[in-house]
Amino acid sequence: MIIDVHGHYTTAPPALAAWRDQQIAALKDPARAPRVGDLKISDDDLRQSIESNQLAKMRERGIDLTVFSPRASFMAHHIGDFETSSTWAGICNELCYRVSTLFPDHFIGAAMLPQSPGVDPKTCLPELERCINDYGFVAINLNPDPSGGHWTSPPLTDRHWYPIYEKMVELDIPAMVHVSTSCNACFHTTGAHYLNADTTAFMQCLTGDLFRDFPTLRFLIPHGGGAVPYHWGRFRGLAQELKKPLLQEHLLGNIFFDTCVYHQPGIDLLTKVIPVRNILFASEMIGAVRGIDPETGFSYDDTRRYIEASTLSADERLAVYEGNARRVFPRLDAALKSRGH
Amino acid sequence: MIIDVHGHYTTAPPALAAWRDQQIAALKDPARAPRVGDLKISDDDLRQSIESNQLAKMRERGIDLTVFSPRASFMAHHIGDFETSSTWAGICNELCYRVSTLFPDHFIGAAMLPQSPGVDPKTCLPELERCINDYGFVAINLNPDPSGGHWTSPPLTDRHWYPIYEKMVELDIPAMVHVSTSCNACFHTTGAHYLNADTTAFMQCLTGDLFRDFPTLRFLIPHGGGAVPYHWGRFRGLAQELKKPLLQEHLLGNIFFDTCVYHQPGIDLLTKVIPVRNILFASEMIGAVRGIDPETGFSYDDTRRYIEASTLSADERLAVYEGNARRVFPRLDAALKSRGH
Repeated sequence: MIIDVHGHYTTAPPALAAWRDQQIAALKDPARAPRVGDLKISDDDLRQSIESNQLAKMRERGIDLTVFSPRASFMAHHIGDFETSSTWAGICNELCYRVSTLFPDHFIGAAMLPQSPGVDPKTCLPELERCINDYGFVAINLNPDPSGGHWTSPPLTDRHWYPIYEKMVELDIPAMVHVSTSCNACFHTTGAHYLNADTTAFMQCLTGDLFRDFPTLRFLIPHGGGAVPYHWGRFRGLAQELKKPLLQEHLLGNIFFDTCVYHQPGIDLLTKVIPVRNILFASEMIGAVRGIDPETGFSYDDTRRYIEASTLSADERLAVYEGNARRVFPRLDAALKSRGH
Repeated sequence: MIIDVHGHYTTAPPALAAWRDQQIAALKDPARAPRVGDLKISDDDLRQSIESNQLAKMRERGIDLTVFSPRASFMAHHIGDFETSSTWAGICNELCYRVSTLFPDHFIGAAMLPQSPGVDPKTCLPELERCINDYGFVAINLNPDPSGGHWTSPPLTDRHWYPIYEKMVELDIPAMVHVSTSCNACFHTTGAHYLNADTTAFMQCLTGDLFRDFPTLRFLIPHGGGAVPYHWGRFRGLAQELKKPLLQEHLLGNIFFDTCVYHQPGIDLLTKVIPVRNILFASEMIGAVRGIDPETGFSYDDTRRYIEASTLSADERLAVYEGNARRVFPRLDAALKSRGH
């Protein structure tokens, strides 16, 4: 079985974006505020948006199941206040839930949180619990920078975030550390902010001792870990200067990397320097980079091709494709087992 | 000849830091303001700080010449105002100049600029010209984020920066794009902020058309280009989505990467995905990562070992070690020629 642990609902019916536009307009003109019930998306709309996009590509590429969360760039936690994010997260998560019920063999949810800059993260817990307990979601996406590129929240090692971690540990779910749209003109969203956030989150964990407080807490760092594997020697050396244990002991029981790296040499480096048990297959398909690579003739985000062409053994590929995901996402494993997989 | 294009004066005599501490204290208590003349560092102090450190390692590693600039983390452009930065840059640049006169065969200067957040970059021009014309420096370090991790300046493609670029073109000097200390708690200086800035600067150039306005402008992106080579497929794909030319045409006539990547797999990736003519040898020795790698028994920052062990041909190594630096730093080439090299 091949599990893609990083998929977003980037192809939601246009009514969703139109509703969001109204919600944003209402921040200046409350008379325009849309009601949640104004958004009408039928099951057929959902089916079509998935069948002709993600599911078609999954079939083409031989991917069985995707951990599916709301579109990352649309989370835009910096817009409005907690109420704004709360309503928006509720809508987006419910759509992913509906996709998971329409295609139960192919999609299982991961929750967007209703984060808002300067707001206590514990306000996210009701939505989080609803998604895990009522929707059967298996993970959350945690935004380390709800300001959208201004980085005004404390580092992930700060007690500020502990209410989320306590609930994650209680529910035994991992978090993918994933920022959203940058509203800082310096940072291109998918070309700089995403990768910077990955590197930043890893280094925050490296300098701290978060996993001493939460030995079972698990973070998935997307986009192949940002700059981290390429600079693995630098990070090993920085840990050494900071008198931390070897990265293997200090972080690799808790931090995992996905395979959203869109060329063969990048995947080759990732699989060479990061232990296999810390690598989870993912493609973030129909995401940041949707084109065909003229050098290969295949989609940049068809990351399965790179894994197949890597030097991983058959057993190692199995771990990257399935075993590691089942271990890092125990609720995913349980859901699969309950369905006889 | 082996030229290291990225060295900082990280080992300056302690009197320098003490003077800076006084300068910073005086921001709150002007009565404590030190005078420039209060700083006494003798030629013997300078000689000793270099001979037992950078020069010793250069001899050990077979590096002939280092392009030498003030300590990057000490630039701290976010501290004080333009006057603060101006006085501090003047002192730091003069020390590098003195090192270059004491060891003319081994060090040649690159200037720190007296940048200050919110201040027009053209205020940097007198110091820049002094360093190039009077001190014989061959490059500048340009900080794309003088705020120190808050990223409040416009992107490098903005006209805000054009006065610097016009002068760079006139003087035919490259800039290394290098941030300084992060005062944002989210970003560890050398483990996140430096690498993020490298990725950010590259992506700013990718989204813009700066090199149409300045066809001969040259940027050196340090630390192996941050996350860029590891995600080269992503960047190629993003350029394609943005309808930009191939990166080769769009950016690689003007952007170069150094080899400050502190493990063999990173250098192997760099030399595989980036054209050889865009790679310049560097180590940033006695910098961010000063330890011995227990996996190799050698210093992490002994990057020459990685180049030697790479698959580069002898001619390609020559380009990385010397030829590319002479092409990208024409004033360095001229200085070497004038000395018979």
